[in-house]
Amino acid sequence: MNDRLVLHEYSASGNCYKVRLTAALVGKEIERREYDIMKGETRTSQFLANVNSNGRIPVLQVGDRFIPESNAACYFVAEGSQLIPTDPFDHADMLRWMFWEQYSHEPNIATLKFWMRTLGPDQLTDQQRLQMPGKRAAGNAALKLMDDHLKGRSWFVGEAISLADVCLFAYTHRAGEAEFDLQRYPNVLAWLERVGGTPRFIGMGS
Amino acid sequence: MNDRLVLHEYSASGNCYKVRLTAALVGKEIERREYDIMKGETRTSQFLANVNSNGRIPVLQVGDRFIPESNAACYFVAEGSQLIPTDPFDHADMLRWMFWEQYSHEPNIATLKFWMRTLGPDQLTDQQRLQMPGKRAAGNAALKLMDDHLKGRSWFVGEAISLADVCLFAYTHRAGEAEFDLQRYPNVLAWLERVGGTPRFIGMGS
Repeated sequence: MNDRLVLHEYSASGNCYKVRLTAALVGKEIERREYDIMKGETRTSQFLANVNSNGRIPVLQVGDRFIPESNAACYFVAEGSQLIPTDPFDHADMLRWMFWEQYSHEPNIATLKFWMRTLGPDQLTDQQRLQMPGKRAAGNAALKLMDDHLKGRSWFVGEAISLADVCLFAYTHRAGEAEFDLQRYPNVLAWLERVGGTPRFIGMGS
Repeated sequence: MNDRLVLHEYSASGNCYKVRLTAALVGKEIERREYDIMKGETRTSQFLANVNSNGRIPVLQVGDRFIPESNAACYFVAEGSQLIPTDPFDHADMLRWMFWEQYSHEPNIATLKFWMRTLGPDQLTDQQRLQMPGKRAAGNAALKLMDDHLKGRSWFVGEAISLADVCLFAYTHRAGEAEFDLQRYPNVLAWLERVGGTPRFIGMGS
């Protein structure tokens, strides 16, 4: 497993940051290749043919092979490290939070942030505008579920930081940019601090 | 790991069928507890407090602990079996398809099926109606991506059936009910046959 790791990314994306944060926490080197999604650089025929046929980033390159999907890329980078619990229940529980993140958290909190900050309110279609209240409610429900779960706990799974925390951290810590009020979720705020204080932690800008 | 497994489910849901199919393929016994989601049986205070605080099924009960999220439940059931590749790249590639299923396939194909067949066209809100063309296009894009990937391959990952195939099978084989034309995707059709011919395979009705 000494293949070179290359992250094909748009560095402002939380999904890409997850993979960099995972690599930092486990002390792995990762090269970075930047694409401007606003200029369609992940929709070129070259990208679609050679990197990811659905035109999305991040994609982790391992030698000459590719792993799309941020949480799968994080898993590959963290394989064999303490970020992945070995107990079968805890391991499945970690995956549970990672699937939940992609189904119930990211499509609401990250999508609202993208619409409001990256595209901008003037660029939204009627269909997007009409979906905003539903995404607002679902995003707040997701934050509340996290807050309730973290009551009396330090980490999402077991007694230590795992990939569940890393993957949930990425879009939660920037939820304020989509006008979610994190002050309403004190257990989430304390947990964000805890993740930020982990040895070898890196911020989104690094 | 001799804890009793209980599946809290709505048996008409593809996400629940995945877990039963996984158990059948690996030869594990699983008890079933049925809830009628149309009658709100997963939104009772008892369910929210004791089974899953976000009111969704399936949930896999392991002794007195619970694993929500269908694909995480499948992973727990299949742990240690041949449905989970041991090579780290293939393992991450399997997870890649499972995350993709929850992000790019299920919210389009399963949601359209639910809206059209379970709720019924007359019950849809304007917001749901407005989202239908987008979900139709994204569902067809998902089926095309699968069809392209399966060109020259028997299985999604490596040379054998894995959880990636099981999790993708659940909603793909019933996509016709949401008026997706599977005849347009011959590699998908051949793969559906292949999955259906796997030893110990069970159909959705069993």
